[in-house]
Amino acid sequence: MARRKISGEIKRIGLLQSVFNKDSLRLSRNGLAPRLAISVKDLDDCAVYDFDGKLSLVVGSDFVRGTGFNMFRMGYMNYYDIGYYLVIANLSDIAAMGAEPIGITTIIRYTKDLTDEQFLELTRGIHEAARKYTVPVIGGDIGGYEESVLSATALGITDKGRYLLRRNVKKDDLLCVTGYIGIAETALAYFKVAKPAGLRLDKKEERVLIESWSRPEARVKEGLLLSRSGIGHGCQDISDGLKQTIIQMSEASNLSFEIFEDQLPIHSITMKVAGYLNANPTHLAMSNSVDFQLLFSISPRDLERCRQLFTEEGLSFTVIGKERAHIRNKLKQKDGKLVPLPGFVWNQNFRDVTSQVLRQNGLRHRN
Amino acid sequence: MARRKISGEIKRIGLLQSVFNKDSLRLSRNGLAPRLAISVKDLDDCAVYDFDGKLSLVVGSDFVRGTGFNMFRMGYMNYYDIGYYLVIANLSDIAAMGAEPIGITTIIRYTKDLTDEQFLELTRGIHEAARKYTVPVIGGDIGGYEESVLSATALGITDKGRYLLRRNVKKDDLLCVTGYIGIAETALAYFKVAKPAGLRLDKKEERVLIESWSRPEARVKEGLLLSRSGIGHGCQDISDGLKQTIIQMSEASNLSFEIFEDQLPIHSITMKVAGYLNANPTHLAMSNSVDFQLLFSISPRDLERCRQLFTEEGLSFTVIGKERAHIRNKLKQKDGKLVPLPGFVWNQNFRDVTSQVLRQNGLRHRN
Repeated sequence: MARRKISGEIKRIGLLQSVFNKDSLRLSRNGLAPRLAISVKDLDDCAVYDFDGKLSLVVGSDFVRGTGFNMFRMGYMNYYDIGYYLVIANLSDIAAMGAEPIGITTIIRYTKDLTDEQFLELTRGIHEAARKYTVPVIGGDIGGYEESVLSATALGITDKGRYLLRRNVKKDDLLCVTGYIGIAETALAYFKVAKPAGLRLDKKEERVLIESWSRPEARVKEGLLLSRSGIGHGCQDISDGLKQTIIQMSEASNLSFEIFEDQLPIHSITMKVAGYLNANPTHLAMSNSVDFQLLFSISPRDLERCRQLFTEEGLSFTVIGKERAHIRNKLKQKDGKLVPLPGFVWNQNFRDVTSQVLRQNGLRHRN
Repeated sequence: MARRKISGEIKRIGLLQSVFNKDSLRLSRNGLAPRLAISVKDLDDCAVYDFDGKLSLVVGSDFVRGTGFNMFRMGYMNYYDIGYYLVIANLSDIAAMGAEPIGITTIIRYTKDLTDEQFLELTRGIHEAARKYTVPVIGGDIGGYEESVLSATALGITDKGRYLLRRNVKKDDLLCVTGYIGIAETALAYFKVAKPAGLRLDKKEERVLIESWSRPEARVKEGLLLSRSGIGHGCQDISDGLKQTIIQMSEASNLSFEIFEDQLPIHSITMKVAGYLNANPTHLAMSNSVDFQLLFSISPRDLERCRQLFTEEGLSFTVIGKERAHIRNKLKQKDGKLVPLPGFVWNQNFRDVTSQVLRQNGLRHRN
């Protein structure tokens, strides 16, 4: 290891694993001790313990940038909204395991200039999101710090062993997703780039984009339905963006996917914003958009039953691809050609790229 | 609520509770769901769920300042040490509930200038502390941020219902503490104030002070012994300092304590440093020293059995007081007089005060 090397996040996760996986501590002190079934090395959304009774416990921790969000800095989110977001981001990981959330602890550290009113707004946002999902806030830590800190740990339960894992994709499975893909990134592309450059969406469209950040939803009902029915195989939330999530699920399961471009649930607003930026909407929608949707796989023979179960609960999903061995994850374009998955992952930002394009063009596009 | 008001931490906890206690969400969706037995409103070290089998689950989250520690800034702790500290601080809360730790999730956010080597040191410190207590690191979150962030959530188990609570103090109980009190604050008083002013401890003494920060211990064995034997009543860790902890346990139990000054386990190093600063050692030792010791209460008739159980495990504790109704927590001085508990709490710093005294005296004391 070079002394002054400063690696990126993906490399750092590898470093962390090299330390934490040195020995695999398993709890075996007495017969009652919960069995650690899923841990760091399994690289899933949460860790899982099988308890001595009839339940498994699911645990996940997430940090959110909060006051560092572009949407907050631009004034499209307030303290209430980032409190709300903190809870949803954490519940989304529980949802991805097909678990029922039972509690959340929060860490709230604030800078000297945060007023009591802002602090209360933040806690009310946390409380409201938790209330909406009937999840008690059970504890945590508050205090001052040099920078705002918002993190949480969510707990959930499933019937013993009935959690969903990324690696559980089966051969010939259909790949499905809830909701729209790419909305959160579309919001940034619009408010940071396209709107300043001249694009004008109407109030209702702007609201859809803002609410993807201020009132996101965690797909708890969908996850529970998939785990309890036994229909769900592989599952993961797409908060790293669709492309990255497909790659991770592929690596975890040692299988690969063909994605149908003409089936992707891309919102008309995303089409509009991408069009204005002379960008490929599929590229925008598959990039690292922080959408709290679930990507999951099911057997083709369960498709009709799955659709029926979702419809009964007023829910929906879209089939966007299928498992197809040895093609290394490809997009089947509308013209029928198989191409590598488009989209940026992780720290690459679509909006930075489009922003560059716009700047090269003198910040004017079709206006 | 005034718009621009910026209250301190204690007031903020009150604000937070005013929001989180609005409704008391209890989980009741099906017979198997764990019962939330202890939550935010109970103001204990951890939250507790009673599971459907034979276990209770204990959950606590703690943030540590890490790179913001004075001991880190002064060069007496490195990245390994703050990683180690993060784990111990979180396990101490589990220990205070009399629970056996079963896992920990960590949030690690680092600034741009943190090298891979420093990052690895940090994770090795986390890993080593976890390994020492046979606790697996089960997951978490890593990434970059504007400021270093270190927080964690620890999980523990007890036989169902057998956890220790602050409020479980009984009338006429003896009040006991593990280890020495005030060592962590003594370290700061020495390295920040007394040493620069001229006091010289020997290497071995300095090591004791440094290790109170770099290699703290979580009193897991002691907590387990107290809960499993049924001897422990009230229990809490003293990471807010002894005075504050006594007050909190008193408020939680609606009882009060008489503390015996001549029994307090104050280290000879604390006596030395306090003496040099012309300060009262009891005042220094009871202030907001971040010591991971347990304060607990037992019935006088269990004292001998408790001592025997501790001795068999190579452990020890000191009786420092007794429950005594209606005296509003008093210190019985060596001269027999009952006085209010000495010591600073929370954001008041002993070292800031002594530092002021020294500055007034031209930064010279007995050298």
